[in-house]
Amino acid sequence: MEKNDSAVEVKNKQVIFRDYVADRPKESDFYITTSIIKLKVPEGSNAVLVKNLYLSCDPVMQFQMKPAYQRNLPGYNYYTPGLPINGFGVAKVVDSGNPNFSEGDLVWGTTGWEEYSLIQTPEKLFKIHHTDVPLSYYTGILGMAGITAYCGFYEVAGSPKNGETVFVSAASGGVGQLVGQYAKLSGCYVVGTAGTQEKVDLLKNKLGFDDAFNYKEEPDLDAALKRCFPDGIDIYFEHVGGKLLDAVLLNMKTFGRIFVCGMISQYHVAEPDVLKNLMQIAFKRLTIKGFTHRDHHHLYPKLVETVIPYIREKKIVCIEDTVEGLENGPAALVGLFSGRNLGKQVVKVAHE
Amino acid sequence: MEKNDSAVEVKNKQVIFRDYVADRPKESDFYITTSIIKLKVPEGSNAVLVKNLYLSCDPVMQFQMKPAYQRNLPGYNYYTPGLPINGFGVAKVVDSGNPNFSEGDLVWGTTGWEEYSLIQTPEKLFKIHHTDVPLSYYTGILGMAGITAYCGFYEVAGSPKNGETVFVSAASGGVGQLVGQYAKLSGCYVVGTAGTQEKVDLLKNKLGFDDAFNYKEEPDLDAALKRCFPDGIDIYFEHVGGKLLDAVLLNMKTFGRIFVCGMISQYHVAEPDVLKNLMQIAFKRLTIKGFTHRDHHHLYPKLVETVIPYIREKKIVCIEDTVEGLENGPAALVGLFSGRNLGKQVVKVAHE
Repeated sequence: MEKNDSAVEVKNKQVIFRDYVADRPKESDFYITTSIIKLKVPEGSNAVLVKNLYLSCDPVMQFQMKPAYQRNLPGYNYYTPGLPINGFGVAKVVDSGNPNFSEGDLVWGTTGWEEYSLIQTPEKLFKIHHTDVPLSYYTGILGMAGITAYCGFYEVAGSPKNGETVFVSAASGGVGQLVGQYAKLSGCYVVGTAGTQEKVDLLKNKLGFDDAFNYKEEPDLDAALKRCFPDGIDIYFEHVGGKLLDAVLLNMKTFGRIFVCGMISQYHVAEPDVLKNLMQIAFKRLTIKGFTHRDHHHLYPKLVETVIPYIREKKIVCIEDTVEGLENGPAALVGLFSGRNLGKQVVKVAHE
Repeated sequence: MEKNDSAVEVKNKQVIFRDYVADRPKESDFYITTSIIKLKVPEGSNAVLVKNLYLSCDPVMQFQMKPAYQRNLPGYNYYTPGLPINGFGVAKVVDSGNPNFSEGDLVWGTTGWEEYSLIQTPEKLFKIHHTDVPLSYYTGILGMAGITAYCGFYEVAGSPKNGETVFVSAASGGVGQLVGQYAKLSGCYVVGTAGTQEKVDLLKNKLGFDDAFNYKEEPDLDAALKRCFPDGIDIYFEHVGGKLLDAVLLNMKTFGRIFVCGMISQYHVAEPDVLKNLMQIAFKRLTIKGFTHRDHHHLYPKLVETVIPYIREKKIVCIEDTVEGLENGPAALVGLFSGRNLGKQVVKVAHE
């Protein structure tokens, strides 16, 4: 007790959740406050105390803001009004009550949107062993988005083969940009779609996609897909939903496969798009499979082993959209839902 | 030539396709005519000439009526205005130019909606070896609907296990009634839905379902499913689509599986139902798989071996809705799309 009482106390800037959000989150659904935190874990505790360095903005976070009557997301924690929100981030251990972590360790995992966090379940943190790559990558290619993309492509989709045609939506986003590049590395023909010309240029010129189009500007999505895939689509990585999915269903090959880790266009619309082509599932004997990173954390060592060399050898490009400062976090987070970000959205909280 | 010239000529009543059907088929989209047919296959031909006994009414037939601009069904033949429609049926060989078939053989497969048909591709016909069961069953449990149900349940769905919870829509129909009974034989908890009280009674009292409800009378489909499946649905056999599918998505268990061989509620509506819960595919890591009997014909011998004993031992009940006379065929066929039929819809054309 005495030890704790004598610990250094510092100011701790925090992003506080104002109240439950039924519709699309706005910046005003959060506010910034500053509390005081002791830089020591409580005596006898298993917790670790970390200094947060980078925070990840992820689409799923909007579901954690929902009021009780809208909670359809199994297994996630919901945010509590008056407390800081949380999400994936990269942090440095300041003090540890857990034998597996020591002061100075770099970790990534679920942390608070604040300068310092006391993490009560450190067993869920991943230790960072490779620091010759940007630390922010542990919010992206080497973090949760990375597990989603890596396991989605290599495990859930069973490593699509040379010559297969792959379509990726939200293709410049945190997951899409990786899936597209893994598909190119596997010899697939890869087309991406995104919601601005700037993103489309990125796909074609920086990320190596074979083709790309702006789904918001195409008057006829079916025609756009037929132009890019005259022989049809083998594999679709779905992050958007709605009208785009409907057009994709018409353009899948027989026995085509659709892998779904999100449908961001449909999360906050009062009336979701009407889908007219769902019966193509039967006609074309399609397989549609939902997946999440959460079922694949055990594959993380394999991911690191595969992907670190890709990064070192510059076989993979990581496009990040980084804002500086925790106080700019809410704007960055809500920007995700209007597609404002160009690449993986990251909030830099502090220098290491 | 002389042989043919001397062949018996008979009247051949036919159901003729009047014109392409963009919307829901009506009785007036067909007319009855009588032509003359020689009861001999052309000299040197590989064809067989059959007398049709039973014709099967199947949902897929409506897609074969579509005008060119609506044709999204890969691999099927479309009907030609002025010619008889075709579909699955049971027939007796009258004359054969094919060494595998002889006069008197009973067969099932694609045939014309007429009293006699000249079948140019007899290699696609299945020979009927077991005649101690009703011949009409070869339009149902031992025919195409039977392959759909058997292969859907045992192959595509991988033989659902004892204790798994199974939901079946269009559950009293040709495929649904079989899937539900296979599920019961495997020890599953099985709930069906149908569109009239009479059908619901059939499910509960004749077909052995654990529970059943009328989806047209339930004010809240989500509540109905929660009542029947308090712990969620493992496996859904989808034949209906629309609002029912939307409610099912909310009630699937994590890693639940949906097998789709039709979405009959959505085929002819001007605006399909809006689905609000498609993102559950990702949240719950659902697998949705389309299938059709056409990929599984090679398993037919296995089906016969399994199912004939079920029929003989009365482990399976087959509910048929039979109309007598080819001239009543069009009404029976279009009745399928308003759910008029009680059980598998069959048209009896002739006695053996």
